[in-house]
Amino acid sequence: MSSGRHFLQIPGPSNVPDRVLRAISYPTIDHRGPEFAELGLDVLDKLKSVMRTESEAVIYPASGTGAWEAALVNTLSPGDRVLMFETGQFGTLWAGVARDLGLEVDFVPGDWRSGVDPAVVEERLSADTEHRIKAVAAVHNETSTGVTSRIPEIRAAMDRTGHPALLFVDTISSLGSVDYRHDEWGVDVTIGGSQKGLMLPPGLSFHGISAKALQAAESAGLPRSYWNWGPMLASGAGGYFPYTPATNLLFGLREAVAMLHEEGLERVFARHRRFAAATRAAVADWGLEVQCRVEEEYSPVLTAVAMPDGHDADKLRTAILDHFDVSLGAGLGKLSGRVFRIGHLGHLNEPGLLGTLGAIEAGMRLVGIPYRPGGATAAAEHLADTAA
Amino acid sequence: MSSGRHFLQIPGPSNVPDRVLRAISYPTIDHRGPEFAELGLDVLDKLKSVMRTESEAVIYPASGTGAWEAALVNTLSPGDRVLMFETGQFGTLWAGVARDLGLEVDFVPGDWRSGVDPAVVEERLSADTEHRIKAVAAVHNETSTGVTSRIPEIRAAMDRTGHPALLFVDTISSLGSVDYRHDEWGVDVTIGGSQKGLMLPPGLSFHGISAKALQAAESAGLPRSYWNWGPMLASGAGGYFPYTPATNLLFGLREAVAMLHEEGLERVFARHRRFAAATRAAVADWGLEVQCRVEEEYSPVLTAVAMPDGHDADKLRTAILDHFDVSLGAGLGKLSGRVFRIGHLGHLNEPGLLGTLGAIEAGMRLVGIPYRPGGATAAAEHLADTAA
Amino acid sequence: MSSGRHFLQIPGPSNVPDRVLRAISYPTIDHRGPEFAELGLDVLDKLKSVMRTESEAVIYPASGTGAWEAALVNTLSPGDRVLMFETGQFGTLWAGVARDLGLEVDFVPGDWRSGVDPAVVEERLSADTEHRIKAVAAVHNETSTGVTSRIPEIRAAMDRTGHPALLFVDTISSLGSVDYRHDEWGVDVTIGGSQKGLMLPPGLSFHGISAKALQAAESAGLPRSYWNWGPMLASGAGGYFPYTPATNLLFGLREAVAMLHEEGLERVFARHRRFAAATRAAVADWGLEVQCRVEEEYSPVLTAVAMPDGHDADKLRTAILDHFDVSLGAGLGKLSGRVFRIGHLGHLNEPGLLGTLGAIEAGMRLVGIPYRPGGATAAAEHLADTAA
Amino acid sequence: MSSGRHFLQIPGPSNVPDRVLRAISYPTIDHRGPEFAELGLDVLDKLKSVMRTESEAVIYPASGTGAWEAALVNTLSPGDRVLMFETGQFGTLWAGVARDLGLEVDFVPGDWRSGVDPAVVEERLSADTEHRIKAVAAVHNETSTGVTSRIPEIRAAMDRTGHPALLFVDTISSLGSVDYRHDEWGVDVTIGGSQKGLMLPPGLSFHGISAKALQAAESAGLPRSYWNWGPMLASGAGGYFPYTPATNLLFGLREAVAMLHEEGLERVFARHRRFAAATRAAVADWGLEVQCRVEEEYSPVLTAVAMPDGHDADKLRTAILDHFDVSLGAGLGKLSGRVFRIGHLGHLNEPGLLGTLGAIEAGMRLVGIPYRPGGATAAAEHLADTAA
Repeated sequence: MSSGRHFLQIPGPSNVPDRVLRAISYPTIDHRGPEFAELGLDVLDKLKSVMRTESEAVIYPASGTGAWEAALVNTLSPGDRVLMFETGQFGTLWAGVARDLGLEVDFVPGDWRSGVDPAVVEERLSADTEHRIKAVAAVHNETSTGVTSRIPEIRAAMDRTGHPALLFVDTISSLGSVDYRHDEWGVDVTIGGSQKGLMLPPGLSFHGISAKALQAAESAGLPRSYWNWGPMLASGAGGYFPYTPATNLLFGLREAVAMLHEEGLERVFARHRRFAAATRAAVADWGLEVQCRVEEEYSPVLTAVAMPDGHDADKLRTAILDHFDVSLGAGLGKLSGRVFRIGHLGHLNEPGLLGTLGAIEAGMRLVGIPYRPGGATAAAEHLADTAA
Repeated sequence: MSSGRHFLQIPGPSNVPDRVLRAISYPTIDHRGPEFAELGLDVLDKLKSVMRTESEAVIYPASGTGAWEAALVNTLSPGDRVLMFETGQFGTLWAGVARDLGLEVDFVPGDWRSGVDPAVVEERLSADTEHRIKAVAAVHNETSTGVTSRIPEIRAAMDRTGHPALLFVDTISSLGSVDYRHDEWGVDVTIGGSQKGLMLPPGLSFHGISAKALQAAESAGLPRSYWNWGPMLASGAGGYFPYTPATNLLFGLREAVAMLHEEGLERVFARHRRFAAATRAAVADWGLEVQCRVEEEYSPVLTAVAMPDGHDADKLRTAILDHFDVSLGAGLGKLSGRVFRIGHLGHLNEPGLLGTLGAIEAGMRLVGIPYRPGGATAAAEHLADTAA
Repeated sequence: MSSGRHFLQIPGPSNVPDRVLRAISYPTIDHRGPEFAELGLDVLDKLKSVMRTESEAVIYPASGTGAWEAALVNTLSPGDRVLMFETGQFGTLWAGVARDLGLEVDFVPGDWRSGVDPAVVEERLSADTEHRIKAVAAVHNETSTGVTSRIPEIRAAMDRTGHPALLFVDTISSLGSVDYRHDEWGVDVTIGGSQKGLMLPPGLSFHGISAKALQAAESAGLPRSYWNWGPMLASGAGGYFPYTPATNLLFGLREAVAMLHEEGLERVFARHRRFAAATRAAVADWGLEVQCRVEEEYSPVLTAVAMPDGHDADKLRTAILDHFDVSLGAGLGKLSGRVFRIGHLGHLNEPGLLGTLGAIEAGMRLVGIPYRPGGATAAAEHLADTAA
Repeated sequence: MSSGRHFLQIPGPSNVPDRVLRAISYPTIDHRGPEFAELGLDVLDKLKSVMRTESEAVIYPASGTGAWEAALVNTLSPGDRVLMFETGQFGTLWAGVARDLGLEVDFVPGDWRSGVDPAVVEERLSADTEHRIKAVAAVHNETSTGVTSRIPEIRAAMDRTGHPALLFVDTISSLGSVDYRHDEWGVDVTIGGSQKGLMLPPGLSFHGISAKALQAAESAGLPRSYWNWGPMLASGAGGYFPYTPATNLLFGLREAVAMLHEEGLERVFARHRRFAAATRAAVADWGLEVQCRVEEEYSPVLTAVAMPDGHDADKLRTAILDHFDVSLGAGLGKLSGRVFRIGHLGHLNEPGLLGTLGAIEAGMRLVGIPYRPGGATAAAEHLADTAA
């Protein structure tokens, strides 16, 4: 039994605000009644405001992984080719989903320290003169590495080739934390999830859908029922769902997006960038290295920290959890044991971040990681110097 | 603005107990940490205790409709034939899911007033000498009509034929409210949902899975990823999930099943039968007719009440909602406007039921439905005479 | 372990709305910080709006009994005489408080079936030519009997005598449920509590204070510290308290009064009168008698029902609690075992009331009370015929 | 609108645990019913376990200030003399309460940097050969200064004189955070409050009562009603209260003390001492001074930090609140503007403390307080070196 409120500083699920926790505890209502219709229309509007789209959106009672699958089955046919990228664990897993569904994946290898290279996108599409590639799929923020991909540059690269492939973007760990523009950036399917920047528990996932994607759905041949946009959009127009939605999480969605707008999206994004910079200041001060090697691709959402050789990240994480009640993210896949990940997203303030960094500093001392003391103080100074 | 707590007397989602609402508002935890593993193992155990299985179970972050789909894609291949039944709206919708996925449906027509006829099952399977039918799919409790199907008799009918078809049973609106036995009854895939007898908000669905179903999964050819049992069972053995689960609903599941066991499953089932009988006593006293025409198939979960000719059920429902703050279920599909449905399931006590029936009686008077006064009193007498 | 939400139908504490329960669970804040000051000013304003006063008000972190004491110690001196009335148990207890504090009580006996008689007030004050009576203290709604006293008529009687006595009114069980006007009715100290019509848990009590009462406080000689208006009013002007207030209950007060205003005070009062009339319709239909014998003094808040001779009210209440999960109020003091009290106040809707009455009807059948069946139906008909 | 959970680091109210917030949001129950009796007996037992008494205890629906008053009115008579101490603001205020009630106060002046001097107690009592002093009243933990008084040494001093005065101890800000023993230390009235170490919102206060104090109550002449031990103890024996208790706060009390026992009182006290030491390590590292000048009297509950000359503590506190969302305690009375107070009590873990200290360090940089950087890191090192 420990005292104090647990610090959930994994890169998602993020700390759910009390307001949202209370909202999801409202008594469940009739999903076919008039009160629900108002809720349904409201959350779709609110979701679109965060995705910055005036096109269509749907909300699935499902995890983000389901929305990955849904993007594919609504738009593609068996054997279709998709251009995907090994930006890290999640780029890799998404490619696995595509293969499971009978798609062919052009998988661009990566170093897990940088995002999708727009030049490679351009090169691959240019080479695909027969237009066998039906979609390009990129992860906006790679949660396993703390690296963002530059979606507008990818879009520009695609446009330069004149290739008709659809653009799918996974914003599961960026939506609500990082500037994102579905319409302006010409994304065809935006995939989001509830449990990161949207500050909700997991259990909802989202699509923003372009007109071009809707057209693709008309001839897509993969079997689909639960994920099918058609009934979702038809019911959604009236604020309803074709099957029972996850009502209580929708109460939370309404509240969470209201909170984002009360703070102001621009201020939310600036706060994430500022906290990420303070975190990197601490890491640098400790004499450690950040996993992301491209400065303009630093994630505002999380920072993956590389361990000194011969030191196990999971041993450190366990000590910090057991002794100081802070959860940090593990290294995933290829990075297992080699990095730990600090989530600094969602509902977070300065002392929340400083407490996390202080506990990491204490943990490194406790388990004997070689580091230079003072990172917590360096972060505090960064925050003081950038206070509004 | 009305005063008082809304009476959610639709046949699901049912009234979520405060204990469960508070449980789902616990702060979200790390779904990869040790505290989660305990939760994961515990909820799987608890789920199995309600399904009465010692075989396998999985929990999907999805609505029941998703678990319908999941049962099919895990066990069947394109073009496989499934024997399904028009017991009502939900039997009909499930057949639609099967067709969407590329299966062939043998659809037995029905009158929406009775359950699956075991004799028909026996006849159809006997006639299928080539074993082209791969599965029989029945809805245990038809939420649209208030009729249960007699699963043990269906199983016996199947057994008599020696046919190898799998047996799928939808217990979405019966699990936790009506006696059900996955193992003893020889069910291959039990499909459950959170928002009915399990007293949770919607957003979780469940499978109980027999060894025979697991074997079928090995050769099943429908594409699958999100619903795939393989990774779910592999992760589940350690209390984890292959992708982010709906953590907060799992907190609720733990609490809700604990409540069922505190009351005692047998007592829970007896309470549902007693409340259903009290409701039918009221309906009879009013001089109205119950939709279910087979006495041994009366649903303990809900009662669909047929309207006198020329009277619109939805007008009555709207008046009761607007004036007396009680939500009742609409007639679905073929029964639209012709019945209203009283949910008497889940977290409900005597005054909750009597208040519902009293409000219906007041509503009938208000909108001018011809009825004999006194149903509320008849139900009270039934409850007095059957009090423990 | 019973299922369903408990029906708390005692005449207070009343059923606390979920919105208020959630409000009192907000994280506690600094009672010396700027956020608190806004809360403090807001709740004082809201309280005055319900008391209908533009004079002063204070909020005590204390039960209503404390506010009884506080009214006396702020305005009176040892040996002062107070005119008090045996309207029932609470009138009697308040007189006891006065005696405990060293005051002299002129206690007018009563029959526990009617309110304060304005003619007696006039007679007693007229006879007090030396003005030894310093205050007249009346209970607006006697919670032990279901009888209201007619405050405006009491005021008029006092005015006719020209006697300078202060007028204290206990509105603990009426405030927020029954029309009340501190300023218009010329009350000097209004005493309120949180747990009845204000729909909060117990723990807060209130004063509305006239200018004349404030003046009396200047020369009052009873020792006082905790209850002292001086520091309360001085701090309250800035939204603060002289000592730590019951912050979380204040969160609830803000929400509860907001709910009253959303419904509209006039509609709230009308709802209480309508539910009381429906309850009396049930009682009459059962062939039982209401304790209040004066029609214009029927309480909108509760109905005390007299038991047939030879039948124990507490045995009935226990059966209803044990079998049907409804709490009713016991007979107090002289009425112990002879009446039960039905609370129909606060956060209540039609099915809530009908469920209560249905459970009482079932309970009477269960324990063998002689009654005519049909009260629950009679109440339903009253509600149907008076639906807006 | 800020993001993240507010850090309430004043020396009380302390951060209320979610478990306790949820507990106080349970639906209010009948305070005269059987479920309440169980609660009432349980919370009295639990309270005694924290006070470490097997004598009597009462729970008031009131703030701590009320319990100050209650201790006096239950045991003393007008004109009685009480020995009190200027340990800081709260010692001073309590003396004011005594004077308000008509008692005579022997007030021992102090420097606001040290606790009650046992030698002075001995001297004053020895000089009081006529036994006009009826009680000695000490504050165990002076919340205004961060200084504890050594109660066992005070008791020993009293015993040495053979003087019959009662011993009253205010444990409002120590109970549940600092080792305390009502019986073993021979205290006659222990005064506690809910909102500090007991981790509840404000609104409850407590007495532990010795047999000697009960005897004193029999002849005590101050008028009393609300605070009267007699009816409280009589009702309390059955788990009830003489008037409506603050039920929902009692739900919280049950949960909060359960949490203390789950952690273990000894571990709770050790945690408080360890966090206080880490805080002083930070203060020392910053080059600032702690208000308490006696090492064995350092408070485990809070640390008051003296500002460098010419710097305003409130300006710093405001900046930290506005920019970093941390509430700190102001200097009170004589110390206004000259100290700020860091609460490190109650429900707190290492990152919670480190976040607080980090925010203070950032705040000092922001407003230009002269300090040596590194305090946050010094505290982290202390915590690492003392981790279990």
